[in-house]
Amino acid sequence: MSAIPQDFLDRAAELSSDSTKPLDGSKKIYVQGSRADIQVPMREIHLEDTASSFGAEPNPPIPVYDTSGPYTDPNVKIDLLKGLADVRGKWIDERDDTQYLDGPSSDFGQQRQSDPSLAHLRFEYLHKPRVAKTGKNVSQMHYAKQGIITPEMEYIAIRESMKLQELRKDPEYKKVLMQHPGQSFGAHLPEDITPEFVREEVASGRAIIPANINHPELEPMIIGRNFLVKINGNLGNSAVTSSITEEVEKMVWGIRWGSDTIMDLSTGKNIHETREWILRNSPVPIGTVPIYQALEKVGGVAEDLTWEIFKDTLIEQAEQGVDYFTIHAGVRLKYVPMTAKRMTGIVSRGGSIMAKWCLAHHEESFLYTHFEEICEIMKAYDVSFSLGDGLRPGSLADANDEAQFGELETLGELTKIAWEHDVQVMIEGPGHVPMQMIKENMDKELEECYEAPFYTLGPLTTDIAPGYDHITSGIGAAQIGWYGCAMLCYVTPKEHLGLPNKEDVRVGIITYKISAHAADLAKGHPGAQIRDNAMSKARFEFRWQDQFRLALDPERAREYHDETMPKDAHKVAHFCSMCGPKFCSMKISQDVREYAAENGFGTIDIALDEGMKEKSEQFKKQGSEIYSKA
Amino acid sequence: MSAIPQDFLDRAAELSSDSTKPLDGSKKIYVQGSRADIQVPMREIHLEDTASSFGAEPNPPIPVYDTSGPYTDPNVKIDLLKGLADVRGKWIDERDDTQYLDGPSSDFGQQRQSDPSLAHLRFEYLHKPRVAKTGKNVSQMHYAKQGIITPEMEYIAIRESMKLQELRKDPEYKKVLMQHPGQSFGAHLPEDITPEFVREEVASGRAIIPANINHPELEPMIIGRNFLVKINGNLGNSAVTSSITEEVEKMVWGIRWGSDTIMDLSTGKNIHETREWILRNSPVPIGTVPIYQALEKVGGVAEDLTWEIFKDTLIEQAEQGVDYFTIHAGVRLKYVPMTAKRMTGIVSRGGSIMAKWCLAHHEESFLYTHFEEICEIMKAYDVSFSLGDGLRPGSLADANDEAQFGELETLGELTKIAWEHDVQVMIEGPGHVPMQMIKENMDKELEECYEAPFYTLGPLTTDIAPGYDHITSGIGAAQIGWYGCAMLCYVTPKEHLGLPNKEDVRVGIITYKISAHAADLAKGHPGAQIRDNAMSKARFEFRWQDQFRLALDPERAREYHDETMPKDAHKVAHFCSMCGPKFCSMKISQDVREYAAENGFGTIDIALDEGMKEKSEQFKKQGSEIYSKA
Repeated sequence: MSAIPQDFLDRAAELSSDSTKPLDGSKKIYVQGSRADIQVPMREIHLEDTASSFGAEPNPPIPVYDTSGPYTDPNVKIDLLKGLADVRGKWIDERDDTQYLDGPSSDFGQQRQSDPSLAHLRFEYLHKPRVAKTGKNVSQMHYAKQGIITPEMEYIAIRESMKLQELRKDPEYKKVLMQHPGQSFGAHLPEDITPEFVREEVASGRAIIPANINHPELEPMIIGRNFLVKINGNLGNSAVTSSITEEVEKMVWGIRWGSDTIMDLSTGKNIHETREWILRNSPVPIGTVPIYQALEKVGGVAEDLTWEIFKDTLIEQAEQGVDYFTIHAGVRLKYVPMTAKRMTGIVSRGGSIMAKWCLAHHEESFLYTHFEEICEIMKAYDVSFSLGDGLRPGSLADANDEAQFGELETLGELTKIAWEHDVQVMIEGPGHVPMQMIKENMDKELEECYEAPFYTLGPLTTDIAPGYDHITSGIGAAQIGWYGCAMLCYVTPKEHLGLPNKEDVRVGIITYKISAHAADLAKGHPGAQIRDNAMSKARFEFRWQDQFRLALDPERAREYHDETMPKDAHKVAHFCSMCGPKFCSMKISQDVREYAAENGFGTIDIALDEGMKEKSEQFKKQGSEIYSKA
Repeated sequence: MSAIPQDFLDRAAELSSDSTKPLDGSKKIYVQGSRADIQVPMREIHLEDTASSFGAEPNPPIPVYDTSGPYTDPNVKIDLLKGLADVRGKWIDERDDTQYLDGPSSDFGQQRQSDPSLAHLRFEYLHKPRVAKTGKNVSQMHYAKQGIITPEMEYIAIRESMKLQELRKDPEYKKVLMQHPGQSFGAHLPEDITPEFVREEVASGRAIIPANINHPELEPMIIGRNFLVKINGNLGNSAVTSSITEEVEKMVWGIRWGSDTIMDLSTGKNIHETREWILRNSPVPIGTVPIYQALEKVGGVAEDLTWEIFKDTLIEQAEQGVDYFTIHAGVRLKYVPMTAKRMTGIVSRGGSIMAKWCLAHHEESFLYTHFEEICEIMKAYDVSFSLGDGLRPGSLADANDEAQFGELETLGELTKIAWEHDVQVMIEGPGHVPMQMIKENMDKELEECYEAPFYTLGPLTTDIAPGYDHITSGIGAAQIGWYGCAMLCYVTPKEHLGLPNKEDVRVGIITYKISAHAADLAKGHPGAQIRDNAMSKARFEFRWQDQFRLALDPERAREYHDETMPKDAHKVAHFCSMCGPKFCSMKISQDVREYAAENGFGTIDIALDEGMKEKSEQFKKQGSEIYSKA
């Protein structure tokens, strides 16, 4: 075999410091829930005082959502060879509805485990797979429907709240709590996210908690339009490039910048073993497209796929701990001919595999005909469906056509079936869609799929910018997130051109964090504007270090600033390179404010009072009498 | 003086080849109008044939809007020392309403011209300034209102049409002419853009043609919401960095990537001379903010500004050929105290200068009180107003507040006054605005300013991503462009952090070309989808070279592709690095299409017929009977 795995073992104990060093000025905190073992991680950004003529005024720390897991906690010793510590094991045990198997029950899992030639590739501390006890359903939706609030749900309520209730009571946060009303397009965003609210949303199917019982390392999170908009980052070794080492490092890199889930789209060699490494070291949900691996098992010949091989792959991956499966069960035989007239046919890999299979056999897709059996597997491990959009448009020309919307209708039908099994479902969406046609996608999804969470790729709003498709799609992603999409699948600058490198992954993720956050703001998600306000205040007060710390990508912000103004003195300078020392609008604006204060127009604090508003009104009237030309 | 100017002279005859080499696969063409000297430049992208089982099928060339001027025409010899050839001189002469002055009539212009120490800095072939004959008004709006279609208007009609009428008649274009209906929010987008339509739009004030009579090198263009959405790129040497050389090179670089206008925001030394170099070599309109230079003339002390100094600056710049002036005449004394309570006060440089002046003197702004005199100057040279938004919000927190909308109301009042003088006007807009509050900006502007074209900076949809503000703002720009904004002012990745370098300018411009084009598509601008369709077809047919050629940034697309697959063979490969040779969805999709054709489901061409639709319907019904589970 290749030298890559040994190389990996040599390096595994220590990830690159790029991926793990704590972010400057940030502190990892843990908020405790109702029991000692509910410890919800957040990142707190610590800020400098504001210097004013009245003395130093403190700027309180800003808590932010943290996807980076234990990697950014300097108190945790990371050992990739052993994997992350258990978060959920005890909770799963306590429910007493699962049992341990002696080893993998899938044929493929057994084969890989007993192959001595793979010993050096294999994750050392293989856990025994869990499965539901006979007749039991271990999905979070099942518990939710029975009125049970699981520790996962409470964890999520704390995580999504980001200490907002506490902040509201603290007068130091008054200045940063200001927020504009949102336009939510029917999303219901409560002032306080309670564990009971989380339960209701999961029970109704409006949100999912992707959390396989074989992935106890997971820090629970939720996907639904009444919560913060999430993003997904992809990784995967393909036939042409990449290695195991790179994939694990990429996962840690992806969550550092804010990926809420990671999809492992590997199609190369040893993907079973790579996946194990990733899962054991991942604090975020891992999704896969099992048909990719199934296809490899039949030598890449789509026609040779069978239900049995696919089923074995589902069990293999479910027992490793994959949290959600993309399954293209909506690509029905009847829709396939509709794609023949398209500009770009079928662009989803999973969709095209199934289309080819359907045509070759002239039979209905086995994913569709065996859907209830798939549900039985899903609920035995709590794997969530990500119902794949195999017929998504690959060009603006094909957007919103009958093939795409036909499939969506079928996905709605399948959602109902999955829910009868208490299996969690999200729905995948496009693709390439011009702006004026995006909302129809969201509205149709909500209607046809009964408000199951939507999970979209982009959409790309134009086809003419390869090399910049993170931007063409970030524009569409912000919009669909605003309209109600629950999770946005990232696109990197290499889309349509090649495989993303580390820098591409970072840029893709930050772009999508921007889209997701812009959507949260537009919807009016409570507390969403706190970080923006803290940034704006730091900007106005020339607190450069705080601007870097509050940035989505503090390192890039600092690097760009240093390019023009490398000196340390400039970090505290009351001007910036755009205008220079003598000619700074922020500076002049501060002068105006001081002048206004001295001359009885009120300072910022006075201005916040109703009294000042009156004064300003009065001045306005007076002013117009004296100075108006008319 | 510094060595920079000599350095410039040494290099001036030859710009860097980066900025001027023709784009691969593209040809400069000129479409002739009703007279021999109306030669409208376009770029034609030439494509490879499609290889099919029926033999090679040609893909016709795709005409695209071209802002790059003669620089990308290999038949034109560029000599920066002499400047570009005249485009409009004869048209201006023929109107017989202007006269030549012996030299600059502004005090400052005279002083600079007679200063021997500046000789080595000065543009060699200084033209004599033109000015309207006494009692004449030389604005395009004035001609338009009189029913005159100027050569500029005809030029623009041809330019905006991009040969669409011709393409519609040519069956080879059938496949790429497909377009989705747009949502235009009240924009009126005619099927054919005629010279008469251009005239009407200019006469009504809904569009402007920034075209100073002292800028005859200009290739005329139009800004209005019933035309293609335009973008502006900024350049400028500040007190801290930059040189004359860099500024001219940046202008050529900016228009290469697609900047429709360039604003020269210089604030450093020798800006009079720099501006001359830029104007004489610029085929696109140049805008400035005259108050910046006026402030330099009073040593940077805002309180020392006077109407006389400002007026002299307007004349100085008008006689050089500046096409539009940003003038912050809406920053009235009464609005200033309203900004005291803001999160980030006043962030516009021009706005803060005027605010400071107003407070220091406790007097109404001289820009407001002398507005009619300003109009007199504008119409004598045909300089357009870009009425500045001095009180635009610098943070989400301050978006859409009373100061901002108060100023907008005043800008509407000033628009009316300018129109009484037949002076062209556009209105500047925000700033930092969350998505749900963007549309209100556009709607208010149309209403308060009587549909004068809106020209916005971004807006940035979140404050938390310094280093990526081209993206935070590109999201907002695409939306406001869709809603009706006529020109988008670009933002680079260095916004809030430092001065953009060449690469930042390129990224900023391409980002804004994406936003503008996404807006054109969403509005349903006739022909907007042609390039997208051609790209999608090339993508489906694995014509890699054509994908690069059709890209907004062909060089970046090629570079990214080569990173993963550097071999030439891969440029014709029927797969890409994302999936590898055995596992390509596009390939499978083509197989599906062939299969469908062989089995009577129709090929893409047959599918376009009504007959195929029926067949598909029939199959759908049949299929569901045979295969449906229910």
